[in-house]
Amino acid sequence: MGKETTIYDIAKELKLSPATVSRALNDHPAITLKTKSLITTKAKELGYRSNKFASNLRRQKTNTIGVIVPRLNSYLMSTVLAGMEKVANEAGYNLIISQSLESQKKEIVNARTMFDGRVDALLVSVAYDTDSYEHFEAFINKKIPLVFFDRVIEQFDCTSIVIDNVKGGYEATRHLIDEGCRRIMHVTGSLKRNVYADRLRGYRLALAENGIAFEEDWLVVTDLSPEAGRKMAKKIQQLRPGFDGLFVANDSCAVSCMGALKQAGISVPGDLAVVGFNDDPLAEVIEPQLTTVHYPGKEMGEIAMQTLINHLNGSLNMHPADLIVLRSELIVRQSSRKSQAQGTL
Amino acid sequence: MGKETTIYDIAKELKLSPATVSRALNDHPAITLKTKSLITTKAKELGYRSNKFASNLRRQKTNTIGVIVPRLNSYLMSTVLAGMEKVANEAGYNLIISQSLESQKKEIVNARTMFDGRVDALLVSVAYDTDSYEHFEAFINKKIPLVFFDRVIEQFDCTSIVIDNVKGGYEATRHLIDEGCRRIMHVTGSLKRNVYADRLRGYRLALAENGIAFEEDWLVVTDLSPEAGRKMAKKIQQLRPGFDGLFVANDSCAVSCMGALKQAGISVPGDLAVVGFNDDPLAEVIEPQLTTVHYPGKEMGEIAMQTLINHLNGSLNMHPADLIVLRSELIVRQSSRKSQAQGTL
Repeated sequence: MGKETTIYDIAKELKLSPATVSRALNDHPAITLKTKSLITTKAKELGYRSNKFASNLRRQKTNTIGVIVPRLNSYLMSTVLAGMEKVANEAGYNLIISQSLESQKKEIVNARTMFDGRVDALLVSVAYDTDSYEHFEAFINKKIPLVFFDRVIEQFDCTSIVIDNVKGGYEATRHLIDEGCRRIMHVTGSLKRNVYADRLRGYRLALAENGIAFEEDWLVVTDLSPEAGRKMAKKIQQLRPGFDGLFVANDSCAVSCMGALKQAGISVPGDLAVVGFNDDPLAEVIEPQLTTVHYPGKEMGEIAMQTLINHLNGSLNMHPADLIVLRSELIVRQSSRKSQAQGTL
Repeated sequence: MGKETTIYDIAKELKLSPATVSRALNDHPAITLKTKSLITTKAKELGYRSNKFASNLRRQKTNTIGVIVPRLNSYLMSTVLAGMEKVANEAGYNLIISQSLESQKKEIVNARTMFDGRVDALLVSVAYDTDSYEHFEAFINKKIPLVFFDRVIEQFDCTSIVIDNVKGGYEATRHLIDEGCRRIMHVTGSLKRNVYADRLRGYRLALAENGIAFEEDWLVVTDLSPEAGRKMAKKIQQLRPGFDGLFVANDSCAVSCMGALKQAGISVPGDLAVVGFNDDPLAEVIEPQLTTVHYPGKEMGEIAMQTLINHLNGSLNMHPADLIVLRSELIVRQSSRKSQAQGTL
């Protein structure tokens, strides 16, 4: 990489004083438009980069907002980011995104990169295994707005945006019970994370309300990958006739499980009724189509970003520990309609 | 946001000279380990951020690599990014990612953010509508390594990493012809982009080699979205019996088109044989499973990043205008097996 261009280089080339160049680049009223134009053209030509550190001391703004997500290869996360981009663009902010790949270690590096990059604000959905939160303290101390979404934590007085995961888990399980299921397996992710812990609470609540005794081996904690779905299918096969219902905490895992069950000759929903979570496009492509909980990802992204931008613009003071809860909705499709498939209720 | 902590603040708190603080933070040998530890602890406590501008003049490194992609909501892009992350992490680099949302205007802002953020290198897959490339010149001038992948341009002497899209398009079309198709529609994206222009070349080559006269209305340029796929299904329906083969330049558009065709009672592959591109997981979920061209996304990401890092580490000098071409492969599944479906060849 070449040497960094400074205002001295620009000054030298144009035979002007460094002070004039500095003022022009900072849009100082004492400099004529003509001179400003001359200087900015030369600055561009020489590849001058504004000294963010110095200019931050004055403006404190980079118009860049950082987002840390667990993984980018999920439909849900891409819809959340689409919502964030939409609102950020309209407000003149640019997003930079990094993924923790579900690792706390990487999340710490990401947070540091965002902090050193002087983002105006940070949005985070935490990794599977994160269990200390010191890497976010620098933002709190520096009063850089910090918002958590989807996978949130309670350690700081930050605004959090979530869906009602207890309700989502409850409705999914209650629906399976209504369809005649009595032995319902629940496949989920790390219970350190609110989204999975709360869906489990909803599941257990629905069982309890309907007089079904939960058994420890009904609950399986996985990484919710498609591979985990295929493994689950094998387990279900071996236990046959063990379970008559299956509630999986995301669709990509549920769909791969269904695919493997079908190949093994197990009928969905006849032998096993299945409900997923998120409402990925996959859910409508598989046959039978997958019953799932619709997750308003784009809306979550829009609201998270709007809340943040209102705060940055001073039009809204985020109240410490604000919690915004969005509506989710059970979408009933064929994969769970056991009562129809068997003609018995 | 609070006031930026400077070395003067740290010096004042510790009753040391600013010069000592500066030297300690730069790991100068003249400062004792004890004093260094005292100063770095205080720096952390006060939320001190290293002045990247100044330290760049010395080290010229931020250990951050920027990636600009058209959209994050594609399986292909998420596999490419997974490959990039893997290699970058192993080498101690962190990625920041931004999306152009297929717009040149946003791509320009993204490039500026990456440049001002002082990334050590930049990887780009260009937007649909990008047709001027001045926003990358600053990187070239500053000798910041720039690598294009998947959607590449020829304006600069940069390393580019692609698959052989002509071959991919040729094999997809040739296969449809072998299955008995004679009127083959091709649905693709912006022909400004190498990936779509080259797949079209392959398609036309296969037609020409097999004595099939191409007609202008066989080619449809869309945004390759699922919505475009549903629209295509309507068009195909109206023209029935018009086409007997369909080659779509990505799987998500092909799958949504197939779904709509099935609903309209058109049999795939009996009435219409379909081939997609990319080998998304969707292709194996739909029934009949979709024939497609496997795209080695993870490998592309790994190789792009490894090439860049070798260059940054000085172990490899990228030759101007290097082009790395990865192997793609036709995966034949049921959606294109017209010869079997009809019992005729």
